[in-house]
Amino acid sequence: MNQDYIKPDNWSIIEEGFDVERVKSSESLFSIGNGAMGQRANFEETYSGPTFQGSYIAGVYYPDKTRVGWWKNGYPEYFAKVLNAPNWIGIDVKVNGEKLDLYRCKSVTNFRRELNMKEGWYQRTFNAVLLNDVEVSVKSTRFLSLDLDEVGAIQYEVTPVNQEAEIVFTPYLDAGITNEDTNWDDKFWDTYDLSHKGNSAQILSKTMKTEFHACTGMLNQVFVEGEQIDIYPKVETNSVYVKLNYSVEVPKGTKASLVKFGGYTVSLNHKKEDLASASKTVLKQASEAGFDALLDLQKKAWSKIWEMADITIEGDVKAQQGIRFNIFQLNQTYLGKDARLNIGPKGFTGEKYGGSTYWDTEAYCIPFYMATKDQLVARNLLTYRYHHLEKAIENAEKLGFKNGAALYPMVTMNGEECHNEWEITFEEIHRNGAMTFAIYNYVRYTGDYSYVPEKGLEVMIAIARFWHQRATFSTDKNKYVILGVTGPNEYENNINNNWYTNYLAKWCIEYCVENINKVKKEYSNDYSRITKKTNLDQEEINAMLEVAEKMYFPYSEKHQVYLQQDGFLDKELITVADLDTSQRPINQKWSWDRILRSPYIKQADTLQGFYMFEDQFTKEELERHFDFYEPFTVHESSLSPCVHSIQAATLDRMDQAYTFYLRTSRLDLDDYNKEVEEGLHITSMAGTWMSIVEGFGGLRIKNDRLSFTPKIPKEWKGYSFNVNFRNQILKVNVSQQGTSFNLEGDKDLVIYVDGKEFNISPNSLITV
Amino acid sequence: MNQDYIKPDNWSIIEEGFDVERVKSSESLFSIGNGAMGQRANFEETYSGPTFQGSYIAGVYYPDKTRVGWWKNGYPEYFAKVLNAPNWIGIDVKVNGEKLDLYRCKSVTNFRRELNMKEGWYQRTFNAVLLNDVEVSVKSTRFLSLDLDEVGAIQYEVTPVNQEAEIVFTPYLDAGITNEDTNWDDKFWDTYDLSHKGNSAQILSKTMKTEFHACTGMLNQVFVEGEQIDIYPKVETNSVYVKLNYSVEVPKGTKASLVKFGGYTVSLNHKKEDLASASKTVLKQASEAGFDALLDLQKKAWSKIWEMADITIEGDVKAQQGIRFNIFQLNQTYLGKDARLNIGPKGFTGEKYGGSTYWDTEAYCIPFYMATKDQLVARNLLTYRYHHLEKAIENAEKLGFKNGAALYPMVTMNGEECHNEWEITFEEIHRNGAMTFAIYNYVRYTGDYSYVPEKGLEVMIAIARFWHQRATFSTDKNKYVILGVTGPNEYENNINNNWYTNYLAKWCIEYCVENINKVKKEYSNDYSRITKKTNLDQEEINAMLEVAEKMYFPYSEKHQVYLQQDGFLDKELITVADLDTSQRPINQKWSWDRILRSPYIKQADTLQGFYMFEDQFTKEELERHFDFYEPFTVHESSLSPCVHSIQAATLDRMDQAYTFYLRTSRLDLDDYNKEVEEGLHITSMAGTWMSIVEGFGGLRIKNDRLSFTPKIPKEWKGYSFNVNFRNQILKVNVSQQGTSFNLEGDKDLVIYVDGKEFNISPNSLITV
Repeated sequence: MNQDYIKPDNWSIIEEGFDVERVKSSESLFSIGNGAMGQRANFEETYSGPTFQGSYIAGVYYPDKTRVGWWKNGYPEYFAKVLNAPNWIGIDVKVNGEKLDLYRCKSVTNFRRELNMKEGWYQRTFNAVLLNDVEVSVKSTRFLSLDLDEVGAIQYEVTPVNQEAEIVFTPYLDAGITNEDTNWDDKFWDTYDLSHKGNSAQILSKTMKTEFHACTGMLNQVFVEGEQIDIYPKVETNSVYVKLNYSVEVPKGTKASLVKFGGYTVSLNHKKEDLASASKTVLKQASEAGFDALLDLQKKAWSKIWEMADITIEGDVKAQQGIRFNIFQLNQTYLGKDARLNIGPKGFTGEKYGGSTYWDTEAYCIPFYMATKDQLVARNLLTYRYHHLEKAIENAEKLGFKNGAALYPMVTMNGEECHNEWEITFEEIHRNGAMTFAIYNYVRYTGDYSYVPEKGLEVMIAIARFWHQRATFSTDKNKYVILGVTGPNEYENNINNNWYTNYLAKWCIEYCVENINKVKKEYSNDYSRITKKTNLDQEEINAMLEVAEKMYFPYSEKHQVYLQQDGFLDKELITVADLDTSQRPINQKWSWDRILRSPYIKQADTLQGFYMFEDQFTKEELERHFDFYEPFTVHESSLSPCVHSIQAATLDRMDQAYTFYLRTSRLDLDDYNKEVEEGLHITSMAGTWMSIVEGFGGLRIKNDRLSFTPKIPKEWKGYSFNVNFRNQILKVNVSQQGTSFNLEGDKDLVIYVDGKEFNISPNSLITV
Repeated sequence: MNQDYIKPDNWSIIEEGFDVERVKSSESLFSIGNGAMGQRANFEETYSGPTFQGSYIAGVYYPDKTRVGWWKNGYPEYFAKVLNAPNWIGIDVKVNGEKLDLYRCKSVTNFRRELNMKEGWYQRTFNAVLLNDVEVSVKSTRFLSLDLDEVGAIQYEVTPVNQEAEIVFTPYLDAGITNEDTNWDDKFWDTYDLSHKGNSAQILSKTMKTEFHACTGMLNQVFVEGEQIDIYPKVETNSVYVKLNYSVEVPKGTKASLVKFGGYTVSLNHKKEDLASASKTVLKQASEAGFDALLDLQKKAWSKIWEMADITIEGDVKAQQGIRFNIFQLNQTYLGKDARLNIGPKGFTGEKYGGSTYWDTEAYCIPFYMATKDQLVARNLLTYRYHHLEKAIENAEKLGFKNGAALYPMVTMNGEECHNEWEITFEEIHRNGAMTFAIYNYVRYTGDYSYVPEKGLEVMIAIARFWHQRATFSTDKNKYVILGVTGPNEYENNINNNWYTNYLAKWCIEYCVENINKVKKEYSNDYSRITKKTNLDQEEINAMLEVAEKMYFPYSEKHQVYLQQDGFLDKELITVADLDTSQRPINQKWSWDRILRSPYIKQADTLQGFYMFEDQFTKEELERHFDFYEPFTVHESSLSPCVHSIQAATLDRMDQAYTFYLRTSRLDLDDYNKEVEEGLHITSMAGTWMSIVEGFGGLRIKNDRLSFTPKIPKEWKGYSFNVNFRNQILKVNVSQQGTSFNLEGDKDLVIYVDGKEFNISPNSLITV
């Protein structure tokens, strides 16, 4: 554990005391978002110390030209970057002519931050003595509205403590911002119009190349002792910023406040020419409601989210804080309203990984959203990929595939591949299988088969075609092999016959054909449309099935396990436990070639397959593979511990399951990887949720029914979670004594608990 | 073949007619160099059309910061770039006030270039009608002196054809040059002093980061009708250039000439503070001798080179031109005087590949230099690597090796690795074996064993240690395996048990131990020094031998061949002949992943081992492997055809051998790869020499003696070559009727011809 300054609390993230060394970490941890936009917890007032400024708009990106040493055919032209957007939160504060800057004060006391997860707001309080000896007490409260998702609100309160003072608030908009992460120091935003009127201002900018237009707006109100005052600002402006100056003289002990409403309207949702008026309209709406009323709405909206998504843990406040932080951040990042958006691995908390969509969504996030939201949300996530099908087919064509085969990108914003390492983009093709798996998982969970004939089957066919073409017939083995891949374990590149990839490929083809047959039988109109559109015929289906049937799987008779890839047993098989701790993490201590040659596994690879296709293996097989592979696993991906936690729980190894759980649940809060400054690990937070619900709770879908095998770590008194299953909400409460189920809805639900059937009636508590 | 504008000629490269489309190609083909510096055949006068400017100084480079998508541990910090050096050849010419610029003339006629390889000069003649209707006849002759290797000379002659005219010559020095190839648009040269006096000028510049200091100088003479005139120039200068203006009025039909001596003195060879005076001294020396006398010396110097290095071909003028072009360019690039220098793959003809040293030198160039120069030249090439041993050990340490193991860099200027793809730098480790092989080859050829105790053994030990540590014991196979490599066939990355690499590793260890034992016995003082310096003990030697002894070699019982790597037979084994020609070259038509999965071989890989260790296999084995691998070889490296040509000749397949020979001998002259604009393929030119001498001539060393198996393509009447063998020169003349040998020297020489012994006495012709 690398930091422990966050105070344990059931519902809030709290920091006390000001430490310049922690500013960037806290900027990540106290990030706020509302699905449509988000921002790091940067100070509103000037801060001249080390800081990482970031404000992000969902779906707005920049195609940064790829930078590589040697170009290879098929490389994507660009890497989509999350863009730091114009700053609307800035409020410069002058006290008797001196700028408030916590980096240059005589003293900062009572510094406290709170991110209130229950209610969805962020607050910072402190006392500062300026160089001119004026002491001020400051409280700043900020939130991004869930109701008006183009608006955020800040209430910035300053009280001179030891003398009367002139307070000048200078709220501003600034489009002259840059990215930390840029390949060529390009300018990303072009500002083409600034306007201001009274207490409000608008800046119109567009992104270079992608031409997203955004209007950044603000509207300000000034209060003295809670009374709004009528004051006309002085204006300062240049080609990229607008600043409004409000000066008030306040007696000692009297509070001066600025309320600033700000945010973005974006061409994704409005016509370009309407952006400024849309900004004005929504800011007016917010300001007329007022800060307090808007905050009340915010609390209600979050309360609704928690009603569905909350997990409680009794007897372990840090665990409770950890899981809620994860659930909170997932909801800040993606709310599922818009099928054009997705879940970036850093959400709105940083720029790393280009902020685009990875297979994390399909493999790790969909279960969380299915169980805690309306099923439309998961459907939107599937639809996102359906919309990108054409691009995925083009992507495959660039690599030499044909006839409508699709390769979904490893990283994307708009459907185009935008990662830039050949060993990932060209080879980490198992991601393609995750797309089909997500459809299967969705249908299995929601029972909503309509998605398949409507959209899903087309995706499945294109993916099955890819696997068909990607496999090679080995005369030597009389089997189909898949050469030159990277598995989920990215510490291996360009390997042959990665078991997980081969297994997934076979499954994708078979599941696709199963659905072709079902749609043919039950949705004949859709079937006609799809076969016509895709030019699919029986000959191709048979050829695909032949590949599935004759797929090769590397296996060790000696160890009775499937091999992660051909030749795995040639490695020097020293377990992680026997590796000197000075050598870890290997991704920091070792050269890349040494990592590649080693047996060490970054994240579940063969075991990822056992996780996804658990039904298809016996518990003994799972145990054998778990015992073979986990000892070589270094868990240097944030996505690693959760799968292993779930499997350890399945194998009744609750201590081990709990240890893995701890590594995932407070990964960012405790900054295990010493990189929280760069942002949070959003997608792995869904893995933490899975560790509890699927791991400890044992949730599965069996025969169209919910199934549980509840277990509880000995460190906890109890825990509870809710699942939305086909529009009924089941509350599950696990304690050391037993498990109770409480159903909302209007009809009975039959579930399995430890393999036995139970009938649960609505609004009645059942304890097992 | 992509161009055929070069006129066939036995001794010259000739272009006739002016074509703007050919300017960049001709700039490469007509390049000149003298081992210490070199330059593309850029025009002296202004040229506003497409051109690739280049003037290079041996050993002067710039460490361009590595550019990669994602940084991996162990990556080299920079990529050493060949630097375009300040321009000293420039001579602006004004005719009646209008600048002569072939891109903007009314007409250009009688345009002709000649690169006279026999005498080592380059000449350009043309008539041009300017926009002002003045027609001038121009002849420009240029060479870089072999005798004064810091000096080049230009004689630029202008004759107004249709009227009298004012001719203004403006010879200049310009340090405001850039590179075509730069990662960050860095400025590479910092100019800190300019001076001029009378007809001469000097510019002092230093390279950024590496701090090479260079003085670029010029000294001019003006002639009218061959009479030198006394004329004082007008001076024009700024912070990076000096221009001297000479104006002469000449009657119609009268020739005005400028003779410009120029060049570089460099801090590699002089104290920084002496650079300007050294420049002045050497330019004075050259000018006092005069252009004609210096050119006479040049002709003599080249005549001496040809005496040793020439290969004649009777009955095929294009073949004759091709082989001489290759020999000429090799000698322009490297003359072997300076152990700090080496043979860049583009020589002084372009910037590509960073112009640094590759394993090409050890694998392809050393045989040429051994046979055509004093053996000191090859010794200097070996010593170059000896000087880099410390850096090679550091390089290995960065990757996690220890105890004095060395990994020589894939690409280098100063001993540090400076390539930037992990699959090459970390994995293409067979290069390390080429260093040991070159020592073996040198000793075998020259009989000079002294190099081994003096320097070579230390290199061999460090390399053997690397192989020892790099191998992994596979419990599964009960053998040592070498995982995660790239073989000479760079169309495979991160493969396991590349046969060539494993074989070379085993051989390196065994040959090293053999030499340890020999040195121990015969050079005990050296042995003590070396074991003390390297901390080598018997235990380590035994451990190394154990790795060699138990090395694993992938083998196919079915095909009775060693496999290029594990799993090679899983590929879709369609031969190149059966591949649609529209798909070739695959490195332009196919995505990288497709190339990696394919069976196609870029250049000899398994066969490279059969070439180097021919003695250790039967002819039947060679034939079987040749017939298995060659059909999958696409020869998309310029280093590929020569090895195959030699092996085809060994197998008595002269037609095939000749076909391969043609692909290598006129690669650049005929621009097979459509890239001659970027520069010439210097190191592969040594392969062409090998194709004739080792391929057709069948030269080998057997039992310390020269051995030949002369064959001749049916297309030729005869060919001849010389070899310097242990300070005696043997001239070999092969015709359709037989082979004659003529020995220079003072003692008899026993050679093998077709396996039979022959005694040859000096200065007597023997025909077999």
